[in-house]
Amino acid sequence: MPLPFISSTVPDEAAGTAAEALSVATGLALRLAESAAERDRAGGHAAQEREWIRASGLLALSIPVEFGGQGADWATVYQTVRILAQADSALAHVYAFHHLQLAGVRLYGNAEQQQRLLSHTAERRLFWGNALNPLDKRAIATRIDGAYLIDGVKSFCSGSVGSDWMTVSAWHEETQSAVIGVLPTMQEKIRVEADWDAFGQRQTDSGNVHFTQALLPDELVLQAPLQIPTTRTTLRTLVSQLIMTNLYLGIGLGAYASARRYTADESRPWQASGVSAAVEDPYIQHRYGELWLLLRPAQLLADDAAARLDHAFNSTGPLDPDARGRVAIAVAEAKCLSHRAAIEVSSQMFELMGARATSCRYGLDRFWRNARVHTLHDPVDYKLRDIGRHMLDGSYPEPTAYS
Amino acid sequence: MPLPFISSTVPDEAAGTAAEALSVATGLALRLAESAAERDRAGGHAAQEREWIRASGLLALSIPVEFGGQGADWATVYQTVRILAQADSALAHVYAFHHLQLAGVRLYGNAEQQQRLLSHTAERRLFWGNALNPLDKRAIATRIDGAYLIDGVKSFCSGSVGSDWMTVSAWHEETQSAVIGVLPTMQEKIRVEADWDAFGQRQTDSGNVHFTQALLPDELVLQAPLQIPTTRTTLRTLVSQLIMTNLYLGIGLGAYASARRYTADESRPWQASGVSAAVEDPYIQHRYGELWLLLRPAQLLADDAAARLDHAFNSTGPLDPDARGRVAIAVAEAKCLSHRAAIEVSSQMFELMGARATSCRYGLDRFWRNARVHTLHDPVDYKLRDIGRHMLDGSYPEPTAYS
Amino acid sequence: MPLPFISSTVPDEAAGTAAEALSVATGLALRLAESAAERDRAGGHAAQEREWIRASGLLALSIPVEFGGQGADWATVYQTVRILAQADSALAHVYAFHHLQLAGVRLYGNAEQQQRLLSHTAERRLFWGNALNPLDKRAIATRIDGAYLIDGVKSFCSGSVGSDWMTVSAWHEETQSAVIGVLPTMQEKIRVEADWDAFGQRQTDSGNVHFTQALLPDELVLQAPLQIPTTRTTLRTLVSQLIMTNLYLGIGLGAYASARRYTADESRPWQASGVSAAVEDPYIQHRYGELWLLLRPAQLLADDAAARLDHAFNSTGPLDPDARGRVAIAVAEAKCLSHRAAIEVSSQMFELMGARATSCRYGLDRFWRNARVHTLHDPVDYKLRDIGRHMLDGSYPEPTAYS
Amino acid sequence: MPLPFISSTVPDEAAGTAAEALSVATGLALRLAESAAERDRAGGHAAQEREWIRASGLLALSIPVEFGGQGADWATVYQTVRILAQADSALAHVYAFHHLQLAGVRLYGNAEQQQRLLSHTAERRLFWGNALNPLDKRAIATRIDGAYLIDGVKSFCSGSVGSDWMTVSAWHEETQSAVIGVLPTMQEKIRVEADWDAFGQRQTDSGNVHFTQALLPDELVLQAPLQIPTTRTTLRTLVSQLIMTNLYLGIGLGAYASARRYTADESRPWQASGVSAAVEDPYIQHRYGELWLLLRPAQLLADDAAARLDHAFNSTGPLDPDARGRVAIAVAEAKCLSHRAAIEVSSQMFELMGARATSCRYGLDRFWRNARVHTLHDPVDYKLRDIGRHMLDGSYPEPTAYS
Repeated sequence: MPLPFISSTVPDEAAGTAAEALSVATGLALRLAESAAERDRAGGHAAQEREWIRASGLLALSIPVEFGGQGADWATVYQTVRILAQADSALAHVYAFHHLQLAGVRLYGNAEQQQRLLSHTAERRLFWGNALNPLDKRAIATRIDGAYLIDGVKSFCSGSVGSDWMTVSAWHEETQSAVIGVLPTMQEKIRVEADWDAFGQRQTDSGNVHFTQALLPDELVLQAPLQIPTTRTTLRTLVSQLIMTNLYLGIGLGAYASARRYTADESRPWQASGVSAAVEDPYIQHRYGELWLLLRPAQLLADDAAARLDHAFNSTGPLDPDARGRVAIAVAEAKCLSHRAAIEVSSQMFELMGARATSCRYGLDRFWRNARVHTLHDPVDYKLRDIGRHMLDGSYPEPTAYS
Repeated sequence: MPLPFISSTVPDEAAGTAAEALSVATGLALRLAESAAERDRAGGHAAQEREWIRASGLLALSIPVEFGGQGADWATVYQTVRILAQADSALAHVYAFHHLQLAGVRLYGNAEQQQRLLSHTAERRLFWGNALNPLDKRAIATRIDGAYLIDGVKSFCSGSVGSDWMTVSAWHEETQSAVIGVLPTMQEKIRVEADWDAFGQRQTDSGNVHFTQALLPDELVLQAPLQIPTTRTTLRTLVSQLIMTNLYLGIGLGAYASARRYTADESRPWQASGVSAAVEDPYIQHRYGELWLLLRPAQLLADDAAARLDHAFNSTGPLDPDARGRVAIAVAEAKCLSHRAAIEVSSQMFELMGARATSCRYGLDRFWRNARVHTLHDPVDYKLRDIGRHMLDGSYPEPTAYS
Repeated sequence: MPLPFISSTVPDEAAGTAAEALSVATGLALRLAESAAERDRAGGHAAQEREWIRASGLLALSIPVEFGGQGADWATVYQTVRILAQADSALAHVYAFHHLQLAGVRLYGNAEQQQRLLSHTAERRLFWGNALNPLDKRAIATRIDGAYLIDGVKSFCSGSVGSDWMTVSAWHEETQSAVIGVLPTMQEKIRVEADWDAFGQRQTDSGNVHFTQALLPDELVLQAPLQIPTTRTTLRTLVSQLIMTNLYLGIGLGAYASARRYTADESRPWQASGVSAAVEDPYIQHRYGELWLLLRPAQLLADDAAARLDHAFNSTGPLDPDARGRVAIAVAEAKCLSHRAAIEVSSQMFELMGARATSCRYGLDRFWRNARVHTLHDPVDYKLRDIGRHMLDGSYPEPTAYS
Repeated sequence: MPLPFISSTVPDEAAGTAAEALSVATGLALRLAESAAERDRAGGHAAQEREWIRASGLLALSIPVEFGGQGADWATVYQTVRILAQADSALAHVYAFHHLQLAGVRLYGNAEQQQRLLSHTAERRLFWGNALNPLDKRAIATRIDGAYLIDGVKSFCSGSVGSDWMTVSAWHEETQSAVIGVLPTMQEKIRVEADWDAFGQRQTDSGNVHFTQALLPDELVLQAPLQIPTTRTTLRTLVSQLIMTNLYLGIGLGAYASARRYTADESRPWQASGVSAAVEDPYIQHRYGELWLLLRPAQLLADDAAARLDHAFNSTGPLDPDARGRVAIAVAEAKCLSHRAAIEVSSQMFELMGARATSCRYGLDRFWRNARVHTLHDPVDYKLRDIGRHMLDGSYPEPTAYS
């Protein structure tokens, strides 16, 4: 039965937009899978593959129908992320971060900005990147009439290479706060430099973005200096954290599916096992059970968190901090489990396949390398602490860029 | 915020019958909790507490409305089991096994038997026990005209002491197969002897039942010798396995809630911690996070399995073996996780409370003792193997008394 | 091959005093084992069994030859503790704490005190108890001419019930510091009350000691108020922590040996296993391997730590704080491993034996209860932190009553 | 204090030959460490570095003094392996397998062969490789007068590329058994092809060796067809298994030391930690403690197993199978622990350093890749089974090429 991808939890129940999106994502994943090992070795920018994603129509998946998108809920978007990540977690990241930028427009943008930017994106099939790293304050914003001029550099800009538009932030010295806005990438005043050199997630196009007197007009400002975000806008962090969750989960599922295929097709039974096929080895069966019990709960928790996030995201009126907190805890739970599942499955999978599976020909170490690099986004110990603290005193994590 | 019980996953969404059942179960659990530690020490038959259960009306919870019951689905029944088990997992077992016997009547009984036995049970608020242990073949059935005579003894009969009716099985030598039927407990030809002496689950009323020419008339036979069970009737095992699951989960949740209360109210901060209250200790917070991540996934998987079971149980027409298999895998997954959660939380909880929490005054070791005894019902390693084997080749566990 | 006890790491290499001590301890353990389960149920004071210990001559094991003892090193004393703890960890604790008090005399006492008290102990086969709890400051010392008068109560006094002599501490208000001394237990001014009620280690005779104008003459004072302990005297904590270590290890080994015997003699093969004896079940074999890999390293680390402690204890001249620190780290490492081994083996052993092993007849839950209660002496998380901190910056744990 | 390498367990106690060997190995390791990350990226044959090893004199370390070597015991050889593996586990493997071939000569060779080959090796500083893979039977031996002709290919020949001599085996069809002998590598009839392409241990020079009518004269035959190995000669497997153990351990220690250095020098404290340096983060300290408790026991068990191996290796007269069995169990225990320590430390180390440590600049993923590839030599589950089985019934693993 080993399917190429372990798709959604309840695949047969999906219908309409969701069913179509999952089907498209599966087709796309199949194509990406063919060259994933090779592209992992090469690193760099996957120009062609990004065009496949663009052509799939999935870039408009999260855009409301009124703006020309498919209007899918986050649960569906995450299912597509999970499927793509099984085949290629770097491009899945680029794809997911595109939707994160759109979430930013929906949460921070005014009605006109939403209308303009989202329609434009749907119509032209634009790809969004990220130049928002809050810890890097080297990009400076200077106020001029009706706009800001941005100068300096921003690091770790996921998906910036090859993007059409970007979310950018810059430091406004005068107010000691940040301005956040959006800008078209392709302009003279902006230069994107590919310099990502981690040993995993190698095609995430996470470059350095250099600004030289780049103009950010007021109509493209999402959050002015000193503007305090509402509880609702802080949902952006949870959208982002749940992207991580689904990427980790996708890596774990992809590793599991690959191992399963290899054990069934290639592995030889161990001489002392007394069985005639590796799949009949009692210890191998047991380990497949154990590893599945890392993935399956992560699936259910990620789905549960997505449902809660959708509920909060779609609610009208101001968002209660406790309601946000409940989503944050659900996301944290799912993220911890997915983190572990990804790391453990991608490392232990080799015990299920045997020594020959380590040949570079298969490139199967990429699952661990991708999981290892990506799960360091923020430390799991503080997520566990947040959860424990909540269980002890009912408090919720403070809304930050990581919680 | 520490609530006395950690109830259903989505408490606020329950409504109607379910909401009422959970509320009644919570009230009952609060009463049982008061004397649970003391009764654990004493062991034996909890006559009064069983009357409370009877008085609560919950004995008719799973009985269809047409027969005078509340017609709750299994998901709701399991929620009540989980709540009761947090307070007293022995009585929760007795209560849950009562419903298991009713499931047997619904799955094995013909229309008339169902009508008669279930209506009778609802009306008279009868309590059912179990005398079905398939591994003990010492009770022998002899065919006479229109009935069987049963002679011999049956061990490990959960809930038999103090029951009104029992499901019984006896070995029919001639056909080398078992006959299964139901009988009123209180009769001259049947003697129930309390002899359960395990170190946990001490009030489960699991006695030896002695039969002396006890008459089992044909109209009380649920399954005649040589009669082959349908796929549908084998759902009984899954009802039973999911009872175990929810009992384990309830023990784990009860342990967690007790620890939380103790840490908040009684624990002293460790001298080297530098904090002024135990709940602020970073390691204690972290451990509460870790243990919660054992319980929370088990909750979601148990709920998911219950929904699948209900779906299969309520389907009309013959049940597809694969459909049964999918439920069996979901139940196995949930059971493995609940098993571990119960054992780990009930043992590790002490690291969160400190040495003084081991006083017999609190009786907090009962969670581990109850979990330890009950989780040995069938070995977790073969469940893991079943799951792994399924993931490898798509095969489903063979329907047996344990899978 | 299953031996009744898993003795020293290298049994055949022991010789002379050590060999004899191990042999005597083994004989004693065999006798204690016969009634251990029963006495665990009963709790209370094991008067007769303490006389067996006394009669064995092992009470003089750590006393230097010049004072009439056997002059064994700590490594040998710990081996005897480990053997006794396999049979009965409560009495092993009483025995080990006797030697801890003697260590106190050797570390804190002047030459005359050592001569007098140790010779007396060897000659009369005296049993020592503990009334030293540093966290309980209710016992007050008042200075009179050439002595202190002690009034008040001291809790958690291990081995006090039935002891001949005790180490006592009392709070000296004037100097805001403690006085430490030794006193004969049987005197009018001292009353020992048995009130230990934990669910494990039930016969440790850990009572409350009440003092009413009890006289502590200067010649029995080991440490006067304000007297600062030397690095050397702080070895007492390490002697104590390594006693815990060996008790935990003994519990783990005893549990393992008991499980092994049960699996071999009583367990039935699981129906789905396809083997004819439980010992041939591949999962059971694997689990016995896993659990052994918790115990075996703990053995080696405990032996290594004992050798280091002996080296420091027997060194002449002032002890270098770093030398003490190295022993402290070795002890901490061994303690963490023994802690885990004891908890895991005593809980998981049941998965290796099956449900019938939970009968109260066997009393096999006592291993977990004993391990659980005793391992809460001080939190393992802070030991792990101490070790990690040492590995990061080379610093050693500050000498305290727990490190 | 972070030292560049975590050397022997008791470094200060080593003396004479051992002390010198450790010092030389440490110097060599420091040189290898400088280019290890770069060479891991490049893969291929490390010609220059192999010359450094040759120049160090360590190639004669295990050769008895009478044949011109240093006559070190295995314990010392393993210490050097462990040190080298911290810096470069691929070259450490090549180095260790050189000594394995020498062990083969000592165990299988007659007195004259030992004299000639070992003296020659010591004198000329020869490097030995391996062409012995017992599972690959494609190399065929044909008997001619006074010799065998070898034809065919042998795969997975560790250290063959660049070796001076090799141990070879070939299949003798007539007797359906193998002939084992030694041959100079550099000859017309032998061609060594580098084709190792695993993602780890990339410079182990594990090539394919092609034989074309290569002549194996009788005086170079170590084991003739049908010749049954003695218990003593089967120690070769244990020498080999303990090489694996020490390589794994070295990888784990190297990873730990690297992480420690990085955390101290480069890591930034996490924003939510409230501390000013990463080394003060309570969770990071705790994790360093946890990981050390994987490595430290593995060290002690590896040392213990080495001592037992030396004892058996140096014993005179025929070796008792049980004596061999006891060494085999000790080796299996050490191997399981080292296996886990290497995998866990090399994967978890990243949680201690943070995201920036994944830059290819540092090459820190090589520890996991090396551990992952090398630990698949033979499955850990069957080692655990062997240990468990031994603990249950006292039986020892059957001597094979893997146990």
